[in-house]
Amino acid sequence: MFKVDLNCDLGESFGNYRIGDDENVIPLISSANIACGFHASDPVVMQRTVNAAAASSVGIGAHPGYPDLMGFGRRFMKLSAEEAEAYVMYQIGALSSFAAAAGKCIQHVKPHGALYNAAAKDSVLADAVCRAIKKASPESILLALSGSEMVEAAHRNGLRVACEVFADRAYNDDGTLVARSEPGSVITDENEAVSRAVRMVREGIVVSRSGKKVAVQADSICVHGDGAKALAFVKKIRSVFESMQICIRPLCEIIE
Amino acid sequence: MFKVDLNCDLGESFGNYRIGDDENVIPLISSANIACGFHASDPVVMQRTVNAAAASSVGIGAHPGYPDLMGFGRRFMKLSAEEAEAYVMYQIGALSSFAAAAGKCIQHVKPHGALYNAAAKDSVLADAVCRAIKKASPESILLALSGSEMVEAAHRNGLRVACEVFADRAYNDDGTLVARSEPGSVITDENEAVSRAVRMVREGIVVSRSGKKVAVQADSICVHGDGAKALAFVKKIRSVFESMQICIRPLCEIIE
Amino acid sequence: MFKVDLNCDLGESFGNYRIGDDENVIPLISSANIACGFHASDPVVMQRTVNAAAASSVGIGAHPGYPDLMGFGRRFMKLSAEEAEAYVMYQIGALSSFAAAAGKCIQHVKPHGALYNAAAKDSVLADAVCRAIKKASPESILLALSGSEMVEAAHRNGLRVACEVFADRAYNDDGTLVARSEPGSVITDENEAVSRAVRMVREGIVVSRSGKKVAVQADSICVHGDGAKALAFVKKIRSVFESMQICIRPLCEIIE
Amino acid sequence: MFKVDLNCDLGESFGNYRIGDDENVIPLISSANIACGFHASDPVVMQRTVNAAAASSVGIGAHPGYPDLMGFGRRFMKLSAEEAEAYVMYQIGALSSFAAAAGKCIQHVKPHGALYNAAAKDSVLADAVCRAIKKASPESILLALSGSEMVEAAHRNGLRVACEVFADRAYNDDGTLVARSEPGSVITDENEAVSRAVRMVREGIVVSRSGKKVAVQADSICVHGDGAKALAFVKKIRSVFESMQICIRPLCEIIE
Repeated sequence: MFKVDLNCDLGESFGNYRIGDDENVIPLISSANIACGFHASDPVVMQRTVNAAAASSVGIGAHPGYPDLMGFGRRFMKLSAEEAEAYVMYQIGALSSFAAAAGKCIQHVKPHGALYNAAAKDSVLADAVCRAIKKASPESILLALSGSEMVEAAHRNGLRVACEVFADRAYNDDGTLVARSEPGSVITDENEAVSRAVRMVREGIVVSRSGKKVAVQADSICVHGDGAKALAFVKKIRSVFESMQICIRPLCEIIE
Repeated sequence: MFKVDLNCDLGESFGNYRIGDDENVIPLISSANIACGFHASDPVVMQRTVNAAAASSVGIGAHPGYPDLMGFGRRFMKLSAEEAEAYVMYQIGALSSFAAAAGKCIQHVKPHGALYNAAAKDSVLADAVCRAIKKASPESILLALSGSEMVEAAHRNGLRVACEVFADRAYNDDGTLVARSEPGSVITDENEAVSRAVRMVREGIVVSRSGKKVAVQADSICVHGDGAKALAFVKKIRSVFESMQICIRPLCEIIE
Repeated sequence: MFKVDLNCDLGESFGNYRIGDDENVIPLISSANIACGFHASDPVVMQRTVNAAAASSVGIGAHPGYPDLMGFGRRFMKLSAEEAEAYVMYQIGALSSFAAAAGKCIQHVKPHGALYNAAAKDSVLADAVCRAIKKASPESILLALSGSEMVEAAHRNGLRVACEVFADRAYNDDGTLVARSEPGSVITDENEAVSRAVRMVREGIVVSRSGKKVAVQADSICVHGDGAKALAFVKKIRSVFESMQICIRPLCEIIE
Repeated sequence: MFKVDLNCDLGESFGNYRIGDDENVIPLISSANIACGFHASDPVVMQRTVNAAAASSVGIGAHPGYPDLMGFGRRFMKLSAEEAEAYVMYQIGALSSFAAAAGKCIQHVKPHGALYNAAAKDSVLADAVCRAIKKASPESILLALSGSEMVEAAHRNGLRVACEVFADRAYNDDGTLVARSEPGSVITDENEAVSRAVRMVREGIVVSRSGKKVAVQADSICVHGDGAKALAFVKKIRSVFESMQICIRPLCEIIE
């Protein structure tokens, strides 16, 4: 019996601004990455999102980002290690209030956007993120790009780590993602994307752009919940997984 | 044997900006109200302040304020009860990460500035603040103005509450503070201020502006740490208290 | 020949967040109230919005608000007169860069949300707003609620002023709007709303909730551009006005 | 007769936070770089600073920075060219309101901190900054590091440019500054710093760390106003310049 987690970024609305279709996507996923007020969200949105996730038994994850609301956390910022560590601790703590009020723990932590990308390649930053989790919520699982510096940093810092794969992204021979700026970086054929997801989960293999079989650890698959097409894709992946005896479970049931 | 807590607002620096003389004031007080990033402070300052307070065995308190850095939380904002509750939960949670990393709990919560003043008079807002504490950190003590709506709200919400008095402020006959805009609202004579503090602690009495004896509950005295004069006053109050067998202890040892 | 301005709040998107249907509403109005980065918008959105308005020969107005992005400027904040003046000057100036780059001036200034409502009743705040306009952009027209303190303040401060009326809101006998919290405050019947608009423009009269004829100055009608229904209403009002020989012109052609 | 400008960063206070000794430094300099609310300052501080500079006939300059108050604009942020252009336009415009109210123009624009450093090396960013000035305030002078990409970009964009030199910094053979992280990057001997300043102004020459004579264009010397030592240094440089017949004049009298 295979099992895998489906994670999705949620709770990205802010004040009068609405993003995402959280209400409809929550019942379809197993783990939620919830924005913590730095790159998106505000305390009212966080409380509502945590409550909705808890009501659907979806694993609650902190989704800390750069302090850049105007850039939605998608712009690289040069932070010191001390700053990065403190910013991540702050955001995990802020979310933990709402989780505690809902009778839940912070299941996992997944850095957002440019912070996720920078920490995947920069071991000093990756260590800072891991220290933050270790200090603020030591039982939480780091959700990190399979094969990245973040995974190494989690091991160094004695943190549980889950590996994330992408159904709709092309891979290089070394297991890294093909940059979005390169042609063919995104798999647009939905059936192909689903087939790749199934193989990553069942065989731990993805075929790289050059045709090579590359080993990946597929603990969790990242899905998007914004737009009718994204929602349809999540439904399809769920239905195929079901027919393939792949069980969708929250991260805390995937990682011991 | 009498005992009382000395509390002080701390950790109000922000980025490149410095406010307060935290290093020198921490060893002189028993409880610290630590800013949480809304009206002042940032995650790096919070981590340093919590660590310094923990190293001196000073009780760690959250000092949540309005989301108004430009106004230092001193300007009234008309929040809904849901917003006030979520904003206070968020700030308590954020601070709790740093407290947890230092092996400490959030001893108490004291609203800041305009939020403190508004909640002292507005029972709906006071209830929202108390619900926030009850949900995010139910064991924490609310530190509230003696005789205010906040004290009533704490009782209604099943929260422990400590009463705060001011050595250097004049009182009305009903136990409220004389507004700063009125003449004689501030006691400028240091010896008189210390005498009033002693009487509030030992007898539970303060003489109002009109000369009437008013009952107060003096669990904690608010002191200021900014400037040489403020520091000298704290030292004086400590020395007089010592000679009067008044023991200075953190809030958690005052409130059962 | 009658003439009137149609004004609409625009440019309220922020970073990754989208609000409003600016592209479709701009060709239907004559004056745009453009958010300036305090309650909504960011510099990139401002530049695009100003350019789009200029391309359609729509009058460019600054729409300054409280420094409260999280509350969309809809929450009252207690500012000093000095703060209010400086905040409004800052926002007018910021917008004027983009207007200048597009070869335009700031035609008018309309305070936003809670600032608009507070200044309509508070003469000290209204004076501060008018001083700001007088200092930063003395040729600009204040767009103010008909019959409000803002109109008086504009006269006191030597500022040109245009009076705004609402087609879809009920009026009290004294010419003020019936509060939204009261029943019947909003006119939901579109045909009635259009008829009222026509009468306000042609006769300077609106029938109050109690049935009394009240004099109003209808220099500009506020319309909303968010949602298909709002857009349809603007189209209807334009078509009826055309058939009634009411000419829709930007504020600068209404106010001498 | 030689002449040079002395420029200094000013108006960096924010809300309740104070930085700098603006009152004492303003009478000693000829041009002020005034923060615009992104990396430091707020509208009230801007109004006061502009008024103080105008009262002392000091040239008023905009000092735009990254939107990073928590990092004081000292942390690199990866902005698109469109974002950088719009952010600089916004800040110039905001300051221009206060300048206009004081009867002044924006004499010059000097990017702040990490934006200054990034634009000195990145021609795309430098072009964006120059386009912003050209659009928002085409008569203003760009104040840029002598020999940097910013100077080239100003020429490309038809903008007047003034070259800035540093009395207390070591230079490389190619005219760039020795990085602060390298030993000997800062000249700590005051007399040596003043001598170097004199030679840069009179001969257009600075001796590099390796002993080579390097040509520099010294239109303006950057001085610091924070702290007693910095103030003393400015006084010394003024007094030496006077004895050497070097006239201190605002930028607008240096650059035709």
